[in-house]
Amino acid sequence: MQYAADRRAEANRLAFERLTKADPVLVDVRPAGEFIPGFTRETILTSGPPMDWPDYVGGQREAIIGGALFENLAKDRDEAISKLDAGEIKVGPCHDFGCVGSLAGIYTASMPVFVVENRTFGNIACCNIYEGSNPRRLNYGVYDEGVRERLLIVQNEIIPVVAETLRHTDGIPLKPIIKRALNMGDELHSRNTAAALLFLRELVPSLLAVASSSGSDRVTRAVKEMSDDHYFFLRLSMAAAKATADAARGIDGASVVTAMAFNCRGFAIRVGGLGDAWFKGPHASVEAKLFEGHTEDEITWMGGESIITETIGLGGFAQAAAPALQTYQGGSYEAMVSRNQELYQITVGENPDYLIPALGYRGTPTGIDIFKVLESRVLPVMDVGIAGRNGGQIGAGVVRAPLTCFERAAEAYRLQYG
Amino acid sequence: MQYAADRRAEANRLAFERLTKADPVLVDVRPAGEFIPGFTRETILTSGPPMDWPDYVGGQREAIIGGALFENLAKDRDEAISKLDAGEIKVGPCHDFGCVGSLAGIYTASMPVFVVENRTFGNIACCNIYEGSNPRRLNYGVYDEGVRERLLIVQNEIIPVVAETLRHTDGIPLKPIIKRALNMGDELHSRNTAAALLFLRELVPSLLAVASSSGSDRVTRAVKEMSDDHYFFLRLSMAAAKATADAARGIDGASVVTAMAFNCRGFAIRVGGLGDAWFKGPHASVEAKLFEGHTEDEITWMGGESIITETIGLGGFAQAAAPALQTYQGGSYEAMVSRNQELYQITVGENPDYLIPALGYRGTPTGIDIFKVLESRVLPVMDVGIAGRNGGQIGAGVVRAPLTCFERAAEAYRLQYG
Repeated sequence: MQYAADRRAEANRLAFERLTKADPVLVDVRPAGEFIPGFTRETILTSGPPMDWPDYVGGQREAIIGGALFENLAKDRDEAISKLDAGEIKVGPCHDFGCVGSLAGIYTASMPVFVVENRTFGNIACCNIYEGSNPRRLNYGVYDEGVRERLLIVQNEIIPVVAETLRHTDGIPLKPIIKRALNMGDELHSRNTAAALLFLRELVPSLLAVASSSGSDRVTRAVKEMSDDHYFFLRLSMAAAKATADAARGIDGASVVTAMAFNCRGFAIRVGGLGDAWFKGPHASVEAKLFEGHTEDEITWMGGESIITETIGLGGFAQAAAPALQTYQGGSYEAMVSRNQELYQITVGENPDYLIPALGYRGTPTGIDIFKVLESRVLPVMDVGIAGRNGGQIGAGVVRAPLTCFERAAEAYRLQYG
Repeated sequence: MQYAADRRAEANRLAFERLTKADPVLVDVRPAGEFIPGFTRETILTSGPPMDWPDYVGGQREAIIGGALFENLAKDRDEAISKLDAGEIKVGPCHDFGCVGSLAGIYTASMPVFVVENRTFGNIACCNIYEGSNPRRLNYGVYDEGVRERLLIVQNEIIPVVAETLRHTDGIPLKPIIKRALNMGDELHSRNTAAALLFLRELVPSLLAVASSSGSDRVTRAVKEMSDDHYFFLRLSMAAAKATADAARGIDGASVVTAMAFNCRGFAIRVGGLGDAWFKGPHASVEAKLFEGHTEDEITWMGGESIITETIGLGGFAQAAAPALQTYQGGSYEAMVSRNQELYQITVGENPDYLIPALGYRGTPTGIDIFKVLESRVLPVMDVGIAGRNGGQIGAGVVRAPLTCFERAAEAYRLQYG
């Protein structure tokens, strides 16, 4: 028994080291279908544990159909559905393709993805690009002409400038940006305002070079889109978090969470020492602040993997760094601080790099240990966008992971490790 | 008596309105000697109430001599001193020329100044440019070949790009930048990190246009200097604050402070209803965090007018917005928050635009009323850089204005208004 406990502690120390020594660097932007192994033209990725197509419901199902139409895999909605039914269009889970999905998390072959390399451990993670601030977006279960146009602007006008600019650099290290942004009111999940500006600053010399050689108009447009959208950096934060968390996968005996994800059916977690199994539970509980004109009964679940940021000690685990978040997701700063402090009970350690100035530069609680969750009954806190029944974003809020996932994971852990 | 109290309250409401309805906009960058009325080639401005040349001592005296040498008004130190003794080189107080001085606050004719227009009330204020992060700077009483070179880089390489870029805009409104920066961990005096990035973002489209028409190298260099120096925006914050505070000058019956300033001899304040008189007292008390290798006995006073930011509800009056400031100037975040809250006792109102997220978006305490200071004995808090006996910056800290200034101002107020 003591031997098992020692072994687990040692494994969790290693997981914590992997989580904290990661060095995520943005190295490229590439079309998903070209860059990601196994990603065919007929592949559509979506958030959450793997699931059969017929099990997708509501907004997540709509988002997948929208992805098929956007990629011109079907001439209309009916054809898209029959091709999905027939398996001619294949639905896959983002995580299994080295990606993480924001909300419904739709990836199609032509969509560009940020490619982030963890330079300490050599693994790669990807995330696709923020669609913009319109609440009606593909990843919130909406697909229409406006959504399509915006997706095309992102991939044909904004991202080519970013890609060209990146080629003038040796890659943009993301950890220093995240570190600084925590000093500037971001928690890197529902608030990325400072990180976007810090990222812009890193790009400026190259943007100037590109403007100087090929004119400033398209560069100016791309910069405007990048810096006006407060969530442009979120996808980089997510890719950095995925590249970080993946390095803690497959550590024998570790009880540290390496991924958390929603789909339309519920919540699930992965654990370092338990392979790629997902431990599922019901939906998370939520305290939301809704945009004007919306009501609580509209709240619906369409998936979500942006909570990979919480997995590495950001987002809900760094709320005390982001007092301005209250205008977006509600709640008081006092509540954020006390929630944040509570989370030290369920983590392996304090992040040596991601520090919270308002807590006297204490490192963020990092590395969720399923057994600490079970002992303390403190549930992981996550900052998320809230989707509405009729599609689109209707607000934002704070959610808590359900205990069931941790109970099931602990059961599996005991079966495997005794 | 009641009539007098009512009149004062009404005058202070007007002063508060002027302080809060200001709209400071950066409109130009010009050489001080060309733009500022009465600024001759032989003029040197320095911080604090007017004083005769022989009364300047220590670092502030050295800084004035350095200014004379930098401007080539004398071939060496001895000649500079005899010309100053003879009144051939004239020393003036920054405030009387519509300027504010950072620390010793040296302005000479060739130095560029930011020109900020208060578009609500039509008045203009200026501030010269941050010299850079080297602790040895002219405004900290040091003048040597390195200081001279750096000043020349600022005025010949960095600022011409900013000036050219500005000409592509209709001016850069500073209030929106300051508002946002308060959400991003700045208090706009000793921390301007976010504001510098927000300012850069405003300039980027014009910077791209300049790079596109005349090459990117010098633009890249200027951007690097602007965004690497965490205090580049301080001078814009100071000019904005001066343009704001000046609009509250000359309000009959107002007991609101319109300027605070150090020189090497002590501290002084100006009051809205008491004309341009300065009410002097001893030096402020200080809690400092010194750079490594320095000790408290080195602390010296060379002047300082950057505390104009506190006069309008920023800096020490917004410390709760800037938890990261503790690494620069010491102290805990708890102490910052409680000091910040205390200051509501001495101000006329809560700023409608400058809000503190961590205090539930409460407006910063704005408009220091000398009588409230006397009643509460709560002294204005200011965030300042600390100069060393041998010149140069040796740290930063929090200072409190001396009560004497407020007592003397109250005496004058009673004499004038009964």
